Amino acid sequence: MKNFTFYNPVKILFGKGQIARLAAEIPVTARILLTYGGGSIKANGVYDQVKAALAGHTVFEFGGIEPNPHLETLLKAVEVVRAENIDFLLAVGGGSVADGTKFIAAAARFEADPWDILAKQAPITAAVPLGTVLTLPATGSEMNGTAVVTRAATREKLYFGSPLVMPVFSVLDPETTFSLPPKQIGNGIVDAFTHVAEQYLTYPVGAPLQDRMAEAILKTLIEEGPKTLANPTDYAARANFMWCATMALNGMIGAGVPHDWATHTIGHELTALHGIDHGRTLAIVLPSVLTLKRDSKRAKLLQYAEWVWGITTGTEEERIDAAIGRTRAFFESVGVPTRLGDYGVPTETIPLIVERLENRGAVALGEHGDIDPAAVDKVLALSV
Amino acid sequence: MKNFTFYNPVKILFGKGQIARLAAEIPVTARILLTYGGGSIKANGVYDQVKAALAGHTVFEFGGIEPNPHLETLLKAVEVVRAENIDFLLAVGGGSVADGTKFIAAAARFEADPWDILAKQAPITAAVPLGTVLTLPATGSEMNGTAVVTRAATREKLYFGSPLVMPVFSVLDPETTFSLPPKQIGNGIVDAFTHVAEQYLTYPVGAPLQDRMAEAILKTLIEEGPKTLANPTDYAARANFMWCATMALNGMIGAGVPHDWATHTIGHELTALHGIDHGRTLAIVLPSVLTLKRDSKRAKLLQYAEWVWGITTGTEEERIDAAIGRTRAFFESVGVPTRLGDYGVPTETIPLIVERLENRGAVALGEHGDIDPAAVDKVLALSV
Repeated sequence: MKNFTFYNPVKILFGKGQIARLAAEIPVTARILLTYGGGSIKANGVYDQVKAALAGHTVFEFGGIEPNPHLETLLKAVEVVRAENIDFLLAVGGGSVADGTKFIAAAARFEADPWDILAKQAPITAAVPLGTVLTLPATGSEMNGTAVVTRAATREKLYFGSPLVMPVFSVLDPETTFSLPPKQIGNGIVDAFTHVAEQYLTYPVGAPLQDRMAEAILKTLIEEGPKTLANPTDYAARANFMWCATMALNGMIGAGVPHDWATHTIGHELTALHGIDHGRTLAIVLPSVLTLKRDSKRAKLLQYAEWVWGITTGTEEERIDAAIGRTRAFFESVGVPTRLGDYGVPTETIPLIVERLENRGAVALGEHGDIDPAAVDKVLALSV
Repeated sequence: MKNFTFYNPVKILFGKGQIARLAAEIPVTARILLTYGGGSIKANGVYDQVKAALAGHTVFEFGGIEPNPHLETLLKAVEVVRAENIDFLLAVGGGSVADGTKFIAAAARFEADPWDILAKQAPITAAVPLGTVLTLPATGSEMNGTAVVTRAATREKLYFGSPLVMPVFSVLDPETTFSLPPKQIGNGIVDAFTHVAEQYLTYPVGAPLQDRMAEAILKTLIEEGPKTLANPTDYAARANFMWCATMALNGMIGAGVPHDWATHTIGHELTALHGIDHGRTLAIVLPSVLTLKRDSKRAKLLQYAEWVWGITTGTEEERIDAAIGRTRAFFESVGVPTRLGDYGVPTETIPLIVERLENRGAVALGEHGDIDPAAVDKVLALSV
């Protein structure tokens, strides 16, 4: 096991009716900015629940944060924070609203050009405290300190992270997600699954507890994912999926083990260029990364084949092929196609992505840093 | 899954050499009270490492915290805290030092009789911040807000808990545990195993992720426990055992599921009356609780038999018997006897324990609150 630091102070309020407990988690004197997306929270009653819980608090609002939240939009919210002396941000929505609100929190206390937070990974020294009410299980943003923001003008989708933007609390009520369209549930299942894969399918470092916990999440997603798609109001299935998505990226399974994240980095380019949903880009890229890096990932792929999929017969190559095949089939089974062609992405996009990554600096992705431009090209060629 | 609140802000610094990072975690202006036990930290070099890391800080010392820390001892430390205006406590040792230091932290800021914290579960409203350097993997105290303290005068061993006594940080360096005697490692394995059992072997509530994570810890303890006993300086095995013990009682596997804790409550009486090590009392009591409550725990016992021990053949009764038998055999295999007679406890102790529990209030232990005095008597009779 590698040395590690684990720190996750996010308070989780999980279950039916927990939105009503919001008021106790935010100082009564706070000037709150409620941030949200396209308005689905007004259609499904979550907005009303939140407003009722916060009766007595001073609440401003900022709606319209789009999927893959835009820097341009978020900077408008920063102006509101400054103009209204906002001292608490409450993100109500999915991962994009949470991520966008983390950026607002950091940018509002950042002296220089906020773009530096993303482009130069400029250190954050202060942030407006924030909480979230999660309405879409997928990204894990509700229980970590990372975010991804897109500059629409240049189609750049970039990451930043800081413990200062970890939510003070997150409310997870599975019932708030009952009205989500199946497409978003499928995307969320793939997103959570891939978060685990990025921290698990690398190479062994003698950390069997982390491995088994990662497998626990994968097996539960494989079991509960189809159930929650088939019956969206099955509380137990939705609750289990929701908790899996949070646990997939809160630092627990990633403590003391190597990380990959090549799939995410390549996937972000597909979103930036073609507007493909984040989870869907992961379904396109992950099977190809596993296929290309099958030798350096061999031990973990064989373990994955056996412990997650129960594949114990055949040669090593056959077992690895079967495990990758099962992964792809699982993604397809939850309604997420896994080929570039399924999304109408032309092969001309491949060199463009390679070029964009190169322009942003040295390309050395994956747990060994050995996914270079040529390897990115191969990964995407395997996804055609 | 039940509704739950999860909150664990303890920062974990895990791995070789992490004690050197202590200084950065404690304000440089702090007046620190370093608390420890019988002095093993002076023999094994941990004391020197801590003192070196804290060069430049103001450090007072309070040694002599005994196993099953005594109220009487801890109150002397409270006097030191008040006399010296201590504003940070650093517990260096095992679970007893951590637990005792949590009590010191709460008692030093408590206006009334500190005994009320234990006897009356009086609410804590303030505590001195504390950190730990863990040298004995077992209790999980390093990453939670609970503690158990013994009043020697009346042989009462009682529990208290508060988020205010969660450590700010805990340093876990597996190398600091290499010099522990095998007996303490065996006790620690049983302690961690039983912590999981108390949160897992109850009844199903449709929480498969929590179940699988509990099983992940059990399987890893079964796998790594014997390794770390056989070769105490095998870093990987010791690190895995250490992390299992922490994960067993940090709230993660217990979120949203029923809890038992009858084994602990009964076991505490055996320690209070006969001075038997905590882990050893659990090995005596757990198999008997599982045997007595086999009907209400049936579904989970069958799952445990299959998923943890691979027992899939035989009638339900045979599989349950086999699983309990394997549990007992595992405890014995790590050097922890499981019968009252092995510790010279006479049967006369049984009614005495029942009486002591009754004197402290209604006896309604277990996840269903149905372990009454008669059931405690039966549990202990099964342990003869």
